[in-house]
Amino acid sequence: MVDRYATFANSAAGKALVTRLGLPAPTPLRRYSPGDPLVTGPVLVDAAPGGRLGPAVRAILDEAGVPLRDPVAAAVEAGASATPGRLAALIFDATGVTSSERLRTLYDFFHAHARTLLPSGRVIVLGTAPEDCAAPREAVAQRALEGLVRTIGKEFGRGSTAQLVYAAPDAPLESTLRFLLSGRSAYVSGQVVRVGPAVGPAAASSVDWEHPLTGKVALVTGAARGIGAAIARVLARDGARVIALDVPAAGEPLAALANEIRGEALQLDVTAADAPARLAAYLRDRHGRVDVVVHNAGITRDRTLGRMSAAEWDSVLDVNLSSQERINDAILDLLPPGGRLIQVSSMNGIAGNRGQANYATSKAGVIGLVQVLAPALAARGVTVNAVAPGFIETPMTARMPVALREVSRRLNSLSQGGLPVDVAETIAWFASPGSSGVTGNVVRVCGQSLIGA
Amino acid sequence: MVDRYATFANSAAGKALVTRLGLPAPTPLRRYSPGDPLVTGPVLVDAAPGGRLGPAVRAILDEAGVPLRDPVAAAVEAGASATPGRLAALIFDATGVTSSERLRTLYDFFHAHARTLLPSGRVIVLGTAPEDCAAPREAVAQRALEGLVRTIGKEFGRGSTAQLVYAAPDAPLESTLRFLLSGRSAYVSGQVVRVGPAVGPAAASSVDWEHPLTGKVALVTGAARGIGAAIARVLARDGARVIALDVPAAGEPLAALANEIRGEALQLDVTAADAPARLAAYLRDRHGRVDVVVHNAGITRDRTLGRMSAAEWDSVLDVNLSSQERINDAILDLLPPGGRLIQVSSMNGIAGNRGQANYATSKAGVIGLVQVLAPALAARGVTVNAVAPGFIETPMTARMPVALREVSRRLNSLSQGGLPVDVAETIAWFASPGSSGVTGNVVRVCGQSLIGA
Repeated sequence: MVDRYATFANSAAGKALVTRLGLPAPTPLRRYSPGDPLVTGPVLVDAAPGGRLGPAVRAILDEAGVPLRDPVAAAVEAGASATPGRLAALIFDATGVTSSERLRTLYDFFHAHARTLLPSGRVIVLGTAPEDCAAPREAVAQRALEGLVRTIGKEFGRGSTAQLVYAAPDAPLESTLRFLLSGRSAYVSGQVVRVGPAVGPAAASSVDWEHPLTGKVALVTGAARGIGAAIARVLARDGARVIALDVPAAGEPLAALANEIRGEALQLDVTAADAPARLAAYLRDRHGRVDVVVHNAGITRDRTLGRMSAAEWDSVLDVNLSSQERINDAILDLLPPGGRLIQVSSMNGIAGNRGQANYATSKAGVIGLVQVLAPALAARGVTVNAVAPGFIETPMTARMPVALREVSRRLNSLSQGGLPVDVAETIAWFASPGSSGVTGNVVRVCGQSLIGA
Repeated sequence: MVDRYATFANSAAGKALVTRLGLPAPTPLRRYSPGDPLVTGPVLVDAAPGGRLGPAVRAILDEAGVPLRDPVAAAVEAGASATPGRLAALIFDATGVTSSERLRTLYDFFHAHARTLLPSGRVIVLGTAPEDCAAPREAVAQRALEGLVRTIGKEFGRGSTAQLVYAAPDAPLESTLRFLLSGRSAYVSGQVVRVGPAVGPAAASSVDWEHPLTGKVALVTGAARGIGAAIARVLARDGARVIALDVPAAGEPLAALANEIRGEALQLDVTAADAPARLAAYLRDRHGRVDVVVHNAGITRDRTLGRMSAAEWDSVLDVNLSSQERINDAILDLLPPGGRLIQVSSMNGIAGNRGQANYATSKAGVIGLVQVLAPALAARGVTVNAVAPGFIETPMTARMPVALREVSRRLNSLSQGGLPVDVAETIAWFASPGSSGVTGNVVRVCGQSLIGA
């Protein structure tokens, strides 16, 4: 599935027409292909005085072979020249900001370098989670970073993204920095991510970043089509043995997909009374465990509340939420330390949406699931996170009325819809053995949509 | 300041034109005037089996003289008749919902009554905060309510609002129910409010709801104009002795306002080095205390980061955030048990906004201030909350480019801008002695704007 408008608007003829009509010409986003370098140019790392993360960040980038720009030279260049050397990413360690007055260091940095980013550039601000700050003034300043980063996401343009990463002192950061710098996070922007100390076994220092999931067993529900198929493909690409699950009616595309990714096809209706027991038995008998569980199966039955039938309410709640709770009860014991439980929520579960009372309720419940299970499973070494997709180009969105679809595509900082692979890459980041400190997060994959709550 | 479009669109000639052009004709919102009844018709209260709040809610409404509709009769009526009796409010106690399967009771209720609300009707769902639920399934179901309530806010239309109130078992609910039912909450919708056990002295059972602030000393910064002046007027109307503070340059309108509301005018630049000490001395010498502090003073200096001057950054951060922290340090000791600290954040502090890096950073910091100070001051009996206004009709927004202003006005569930008084009424709810359980909340006054994070 491609964004046809973006493709058209960036063709030679399209560009001319789009410019003439004053329509937005979204920047083609840099997306990941195996073998790609993390970034497309040099990265500038700077810090507020007293920051604690600079050395760790530089070590990670060094080891990843990322070219670093010297902050002093870059500042001179930015001040002296109208066309300073372009940068692939700006990383600022704001952990030294202990008061609102000291936020000024971030202004100095981003004011100087606002215009230096290459297309699909990356902005990453590192901070301390307000709830982890001892001093009130520090907590306030750290919380203020959210407003800055979300504004940068809306200002910098040309396919660039901006994120705020709140990192605990001993947080394993490498998988998160790699994800956010790379083309894998193409459609993730304006997000606040918390990385804590490692839950379960710490990542081996020798993660194979091209195939981090080698040897892992991953279950993906709703895998036959759309976003689910993209998830299955990306997890398989990253080395996992994928069990692709879908309803019997989707048996044909499911088998084709399983074949393509050398995985297993499992036909099962997740809402069936015996589904949890059957699934648990399958996982136990075939693999003795499951390392990664991705609850992706979801349906919509859109109707305003006054017109919605009880069956439309029940089926959406059951597929999108209740069945996942029942399945978790049956299979969580099969997740070993280092296990990953991943949910698919939705922007509409955050903001609500006209005609989707059933869907928004179920997807808000999924956020509750993450909030409840992340602390509960941490002691067992299992992380729990969710993605919340925004407007993603799928057969479903392709059937939307054209005007609504065009507006929906444009209402975000990247002025385009996302692709199923963007959701899948975010899930693969959660799934990575390197992401042992990433738990309890709900990360929107929405191009920083305007829509929220 | 009025919404001229709304006034025009609801005039006879305007209505015809608006209909012909397909423009939205926003419903004129019911706003509060002294002496108004809480609601304009009967209220239906129902509950999921096992709910714990129904009796308390009914008692509050009974005492307030609100006519209650019998749930059984209402259900029969809704099912039997195409034109059932119209209702002023739908209140549903969802505290009995202990699993996602049981969310069905909310579907049943709102499906039956979705079309029965009078214009400017009210929907209030009561629940248990997910973090207070013992069982995971219950926490998930309670969190799911957010998606439902936000959708109802977007669906029901005609000036109606919808809120989710998470209430602790011993939460004093009366001030919150009164606010949300009344015309005082005209522009508040799609909000999630937490009411906990009383902080400080419990409200006397004999709150004078027409003049709840009688005998209270209230400080309002930035009071000379716009939203600040509206806050000063509403607090004075509710009985408070208001100290209206603003910069010396605004001395004339400030004096006029203080005269109008029989309050005190205090000329002071909050960013001056001696401002905290001078203000503390004033409050101590004149009143020996301050019961309500409203940090409303705020400025904008809009510019993208690359073009923003250091002075533009510094002045916005200092007025909107740092000076408030310095003043708090000097005057918090003057807040007695039952004291109220109230901040003004902004929708753009939540979502970020192009051209407002300084403003969004400062207003995000204000949210941090609430999160830090609410638990810290609870032991001293002081509550801490913030409003986050969306598009409010002020002289500032009147100067916006017309197209941008019209779009900004419409991007919310009420299809119109709010008025300064809407922000002021929300602050008066926080300030009320009855709101002893309302702390740590950031409540948007935005008509449920689409814009968020």
